[in-house]
Amino acid sequence: MPRASEVTGELISELAERVGGRLSQSPSDLEGHSRDESHHEARAPWAVVRCQSVEDVQAVLEVCRRHLSPVIPFGAGTGLEGGAIPTRGGVSLDLSGMNRVLRVGQEDLDVTVEAGVTLSQLNSELGPLGLFFPVDPGSDPTLGGMVATRASGTMAVRYGTMASNVLGLKVVLASGEVVTTGGRARKSSAGYDLTHLFTGSEGTLGVVVEVTLRVQPLPETVAAAVCPMPDLRSAVTAVIEVIQLGIPVARIELLDEVMVDAINRYQGTDSPVTPTLLLEFHGAKGAVAEQVREVAQVVGARGGRLEEQATPEERSRLWERRHHALYAAKALRPHARTWSTDVCVPISRLADCLLETKAELERSRVLAPIVGHVGDGNFHLSFVLEEGEVEQLKEADELHSRMVERALRMGGTCTGEHGVGIGKAPFLLHEHPTGVGLMRQLKATLDPLGILNPGKVLVVEE
Amino acid sequence: MPRASEVTGELISELAERVGGRLSQSPSDLEGHSRDESHHEARAPWAVVRCQSVEDVQAVLEVCRRHLSPVIPFGAGTGLEGGAIPTRGGVSLDLSGMNRVLRVGQEDLDVTVEAGVTLSQLNSELGPLGLFFPVDPGSDPTLGGMVATRASGTMAVRYGTMASNVLGLKVVLASGEVVTTGGRARKSSAGYDLTHLFTGSEGTLGVVVEVTLRVQPLPETVAAAVCPMPDLRSAVTAVIEVIQLGIPVARIELLDEVMVDAINRYQGTDSPVTPTLLLEFHGAKGAVAEQVREVAQVVGARGGRLEEQATPEERSRLWERRHHALYAAKALRPHARTWSTDVCVPISRLADCLLETKAELERSRVLAPIVGHVGDGNFHLSFVLEEGEVEQLKEADELHSRMVERALRMGGTCTGEHGVGIGKAPFLLHEHPTGVGLMRQLKATLDPLGILNPGKVLVVEE
Repeated sequence: MPRASEVTGELISELAERVGGRLSQSPSDLEGHSRDESHHEARAPWAVVRCQSVEDVQAVLEVCRRHLSPVIPFGAGTGLEGGAIPTRGGVSLDLSGMNRVLRVGQEDLDVTVEAGVTLSQLNSELGPLGLFFPVDPGSDPTLGGMVATRASGTMAVRYGTMASNVLGLKVVLASGEVVTTGGRARKSSAGYDLTHLFTGSEGTLGVVVEVTLRVQPLPETVAAAVCPMPDLRSAVTAVIEVIQLGIPVARIELLDEVMVDAINRYQGTDSPVTPTLLLEFHGAKGAVAEQVREVAQVVGARGGRLEEQATPEERSRLWERRHHALYAAKALRPHARTWSTDVCVPISRLADCLLETKAELERSRVLAPIVGHVGDGNFHLSFVLEEGEVEQLKEADELHSRMVERALRMGGTCTGEHGVGIGKAPFLLHEHPTGVGLMRQLKATLDPLGILNPGKVLVVEE
Repeated sequence: MPRASEVTGELISELAERVGGRLSQSPSDLEGHSRDESHHEARAPWAVVRCQSVEDVQAVLEVCRRHLSPVIPFGAGTGLEGGAIPTRGGVSLDLSGMNRVLRVGQEDLDVTVEAGVTLSQLNSELGPLGLFFPVDPGSDPTLGGMVATRASGTMAVRYGTMASNVLGLKVVLASGEVVTTGGRARKSSAGYDLTHLFTGSEGTLGVVVEVTLRVQPLPETVAAAVCPMPDLRSAVTAVIEVIQLGIPVARIELLDEVMVDAINRYQGTDSPVTPTLLLEFHGAKGAVAEQVREVAQVVGARGGRLEEQATPEERSRLWERRHHALYAAKALRPHARTWSTDVCVPISRLADCLLETKAELERSRVLAPIVGHVGDGNFHLSFVLEEGEVEQLKEADELHSRMVERALRMGGTCTGEHGVGIGKAPFLLHEHPTGVGLMRQLKATLDPLGILNPGKVLVVEE
């Protein structure tokens, strides 16, 4: 049997022949593709290919099929569950160079983009046309990456997640075949739903190279508000009431008092250190004013107060604070790294799930501020881990497992939006004891050689 | 080789042993399960089993696997593309007796129902709790049937289709295995999206026995309006503008002048015989009033006028008229039957698609009123066919094919909401030339013996 390094050598030379200078083995490229924004252990790929076209993707797959080499799609590297880490080596398929906005359908409120287009790039192109894309995970991923993890974020409560905003995909299968799914009609009952099959498959069923998305008209009026609340339970109760009343808020986010304190320190602000709701309202002028009044009433009845952020500058600062939450958490300890994890539960269980988790945290030595897309029942712990503190990591790991099991017991899911990747794979079988077998059958059908992002999503016995 | 009737005899006696009195071969049961509300040719099943439980479904599948007998799930028989017709014989698996509402999550705005619960039954149970289910195809199907066809209807423009309102499913696979998909969390990134795989699969990948759905709070205020428009193009242009302005209308429906006339005759009304938009608005009081004003402005600028229907009685009559459209069409000719077909295009192409179709209709001898969920780019032709008129059917068939090809050329889909069934199967390959191969692989993976509703969705060479 040839040695692994010999096999790799042949793989590399064949790849070089096919994609030329788009292949790299430079230490900085290998390092840059060895990790994402998660806490999972980095591992370098054998090589990086910066794809410029569908043909490049097909060429890499063809060579990798022959060598049974893993192929790991890579976008912006902003993942939080290690989805893009080459845990078994292989070729990192970098799609960030495929970054053209191919078509903007202004009348139809849809766009088609290559998978490497970033969220900020898309919104920069849409803004001048009076449009925006409302799925907002807080970081700046590629659209391909957002399809991969079925991402959502702060505005899912109003506009839905990637699951409801992707109209169609172009996907290169492991076989090299190109499949176009869905279409531009707003709805269709034509055949099996291949679009949703690939959305959330984390690069394990095919390589998404093109995405057609619904976009939204910029709202006529935007308002935003900060609501300091007396405690966590009253904050969550107010959120439940807002949702039950059917008030169509665009954003309703929670920061716990630890996170408010972290943001104060990081940004030099002096917000009251108490659980706080951040809200945004979109719509016609009268409707927005009505929504603000209704929410103010709900919040007031729970002992909080609604402070409107009147100017666009105040609103920008508000969401900047929210989006920098993870960096603010990280800055709480010197030389720290963060581990951001997410669960999602039916909203009726959100208070219990949050409060039990919070109580455990307070009894532990682990620091972990909480933020949440609470309108969806989704929240995040951001563990702040000091370098080399093995005991802290162990304790965080235990807290994490207990939180996920708690969410599952309450009818929730092990991940609302980060994806399974590496970190949630052990829990998938608990959540879907009957579904995982079928998922494996689908994986075997679409990727019989197992070359697409192996070791992710489905726990496979080694 | 044993003769078919001998095989069938054994199948029946084995089924009788397993499900006893729930098996029927009475002429009226066979006849009642030989057709749906489509124009497709009826064919009786060999037997009907009125399932009362998951175990019944499993028993039928087990016997049918051994005899390689087709199994055709049957709900309310309201399908419009022959999805429940046993075109190859087999056992009609009647799920209408599995009709319990299992759980109403009032705080979480979700419910779990057995597949045989009808839409009207669900809404009767939800109403007193201040809730409703907003997917409204106009007839009274079972929820299982609505999952099967990925149904939508008049309120999809605001609340989405079944694709965005099904949170989870319980499905019996061809193997008899029971798989539970999705869950009660509002969103999840946990593994492959099995829920959407089964939604719209028309009973060809598994038998849906339980459905978990999002429901909505009854709106604080409801308003409705009728807008007679000068012509079809101005009607569609007004709709496009309403959508582009982001006005969150709950319903925006089109009737062409032929349909308005048919409804006038059927219901004894005297609405102006001109293309007409029907609208509904949901929300807080001020927001609804604002929406009505905004739409009145758009409609007025296109030469129409908005007539508000102030009382609940007027509103009920309005939607009753809309929902009886198919019967009104049928009543235009004595002894007629109808063939209702649907396509959906990007909204920017809706005017062209509608007007070209209309022009062809006017040149033909075929009568076919038009109604449409125009906010989604979706419209229906209802061919009115006189008994025995072979030439009419032939001409309708040609018009139908040309309409579907036109919709596909315009970037649309061969069916927005009726499903593929029998009638759209020839077009699926035109719409998804690269996807059909993968759909077949999925079918082979999930139903290797091909017993689940064979001959539907995917055209299989005989």
